[in-house]
Amino acid sequence: MARLVMKFGGTSVADLDLIRRAAERVQAEVEAGNEVAVVVSAMGSETNRLVKLTGEISPLYDTREYDVVVSAGEQVSAGLIAIALQDLGVAARSWLGWQIPFYTDDLHGSARIDRIETDEIVRRLSQGQVAVVAGFQGLGSDNRITTLGRGGSDTSAVALASALEADRCDIYTDVEGVFTADPRIVTSAAKLDKITYEEMLELASLGATVLQTRSVEMAMKHGVRLQVLSSFVEQPGTLVVDEDEIVEQRVVSGVTYSNDDAKITLRHVSDRPGVAAGIFGPLADANVVVDMIVQNVSEDGKSTDLTFTVERDQLDRAVEVLRSIEDQIGAAVITPDPNVVKVSIVGVGMRSHAGVAQAMFHALAEKNINIQVISTSEIKISVLIAADYTELAVRALHSAFKLDDVVALT
Amino acid sequence: MARLVMKFGGTSVADLDLIRRAAERVQAEVEAGNEVAVVVSAMGSETNRLVKLTGEISPLYDTREYDVVVSAGEQVSAGLIAIALQDLGVAARSWLGWQIPFYTDDLHGSARIDRIETDEIVRRLSQGQVAVVAGFQGLGSDNRITTLGRGGSDTSAVALASALEADRCDIYTDVEGVFTADPRIVTSAAKLDKITYEEMLELASLGATVLQTRSVEMAMKHGVRLQVLSSFVEQPGTLVVDEDEIVEQRVVSGVTYSNDDAKITLRHVSDRPGVAAGIFGPLADANVVVDMIVQNVSEDGKSTDLTFTVERDQLDRAVEVLRSIEDQIGAAVITPDPNVVKVSIVGVGMRSHAGVAQAMFHALAEKNINIQVISTSEIKISVLIAADYTELAVRALHSAFKLDDVVALT
Repeated sequence: MARLVMKFGGTSVADLDLIRRAAERVQAEVEAGNEVAVVVSAMGSETNRLVKLTGEISPLYDTREYDVVVSAGEQVSAGLIAIALQDLGVAARSWLGWQIPFYTDDLHGSARIDRIETDEIVRRLSQGQVAVVAGFQGLGSDNRITTLGRGGSDTSAVALASALEADRCDIYTDVEGVFTADPRIVTSAAKLDKITYEEMLELASLGATVLQTRSVEMAMKHGVRLQVLSSFVEQPGTLVVDEDEIVEQRVVSGVTYSNDDAKITLRHVSDRPGVAAGIFGPLADANVVVDMIVQNVSEDGKSTDLTFTVERDQLDRAVEVLRSIEDQIGAAVITPDPNVVKVSIVGVGMRSHAGVAQAMFHALAEKNINIQVISTSEIKISVLIAADYTELAVRALHSAFKLDDVVALT
Repeated sequence: MARLVMKFGGTSVADLDLIRRAAERVQAEVEAGNEVAVVVSAMGSETNRLVKLTGEISPLYDTREYDVVVSAGEQVSAGLIAIALQDLGVAARSWLGWQIPFYTDDLHGSARIDRIETDEIVRRLSQGQVAVVAGFQGLGSDNRITTLGRGGSDTSAVALASALEADRCDIYTDVEGVFTADPRIVTSAAKLDKITYEEMLELASLGATVLQTRSVEMAMKHGVRLQVLSSFVEQPGTLVVDEDEIVEQRVVSGVTYSNDDAKITLRHVSDRPGVAAGIFGPLADANVVVDMIVQNVSEDGKSTDLTFTVERDQLDRAVEVLRSIEDQIGAAVITPDPNVVKVSIVGVGMRSHAGVAQAMFHALAEKNINIQVISTSEIKISVLIAADYTELAVRALHSAFKLDDVVALT
């Protein structure tokens, strides 16, 4: 017997037939003798509908009221899944964030979970009752509903698994697991049986949308064994685990890409102390997040060129800020470019292997792909390239690091 | 300065433009110096959508989960109206049933309000903050969401007005008030300026859908001054008040009709003691509600004919029950007839006027309308007639009791 948390995302409960199928997956685990808590997202695009209503009634909405509106989606799906389980003869009841409660801080719209009261749920699990928990929502100190930010149901599930000391937290979604690359781009991409928390964290923040970044952080911190698997196909997914559970570590576990960035180049910036602070200070003040930065000395030796990336939907704001400080930063030419993509390779094996960056640059050069900016961490290397080359680059890197053969390896 | 409860029904908040208009009505009352609590229904047909989902996932749903699902509609509209008010510069916050709380019994799906905790709301009203309260929902003793039954937001509003000792409870809806008859049938039907609780109660239970019956009962019991008015037209509606507030009482205040009944005739029932109990007992056991009853002695003198009405959607079940006891009740011929309508006249003035029934029967006879069953109370007379004659009968009675001239009277 194990204690499981099963989380179903919006695509897994998008209509009543899918809700019944999800209930059948839960029934199978219950009949196998497991204690099960279910965490559920809103049906399909319901959260988007509610978010849109809120923004349309007033762009300057009160986030406390936003939370009241958007949390209604999970309330509906939790009730429906409880009914579907009962219909299959499985004892079940729904739990809303305020009923358990999931205590959070008061940062409405992107609250963090402080503590989960589990006594009553544990008592009922031990009696064989399935707890169907509305994801994404909690209770603030003011007795008002909070929500955890988009994708927050993953975090709800991991936090509940941690609080319940569950044996595993299964994240049911519309893909079969974590792949070596996006299978829509790389036909030979393979599902990974296991991946480390660190790798998953990098992949999640670098464009893989399969898990919310914060949920992976939390799973790593509390040692929650995560599994990402499909609600449509009955087979094991990808286990996210500690590094020491993976016997043979690959140098590179996956290739990913993100369209979320835009590039800004400033040419002929006066090359004097403090100029970088004079540029990035005002951007930070305007809440523009700057990611990759590269600075070159210009040919004339008196000025410098500066290239950096910002979130794509902040590009206009960033350019506006830069134009407003044009005088202070010298006669800079501001060149915004949204047509870039960040391609990354991720793997814990990089730590112990030299030459990974060199191999990456070589593989891209062979395809005549120009690298615009580079950034690295201990277990990942990201490069910014022209967006047109996205697929070509991902495929080249997938081959270069022998990920085409990963099925044989695992 | 007055303290008001303003209740907006589903048609009054069916889309974002209407929500903004409702917020403007609230703003006007706040700017006039009033303390305002708003009670809100779900947007348009949202409750129907949620009820349908629940029934489709399982016809035998758990009513506790039904309440979780269907109460989400009011949660959304309460949040949106709070935002719309804030957008107009009016201080406001939403309150869900469990936050106030509206304590109810545990009869999920049709719970009754026991008590409303108003301290915090009163404190905030006195600070000029509008309380936007989700109607239709409460909190059961098990800390689970309850709902009050269809139309329950009217009851929420009246209960809140009573608990807050509000000066008036305004029910905003899609009609301009209570009319002497359905204006779609009687073009000369007039809006009543005032009507008594007793009359409103009879009208509500006899087919007028403008207010939930239970909300009128509660208003009468607690002396809550109710006003029914349009959210689309800015003019006074109909006040529902104590009898002594109405100076000149009309004999008949309104003519109404209901399609909700069906007739069953049993011919040649053995005319012996206990036979009625033998028929109505099993019907009651099957939860079939019997309304009007008339019994005639047959021509042969040895058997009797029995005619009665049941709710139309219970007709099949009623016939089934009767067939199962055919032997006990003698060789009865069972004739079900769904094509009937109950037409009623209502007026507190009947108490002091003789001959009202006679005038009603005469007016119908003049139009050759056959009366099948009659039932009366102190302030109403109802007749069952063939459904084809509905409009003819309503118009004839409207004229006969001089309601065509009611505008001049009030």
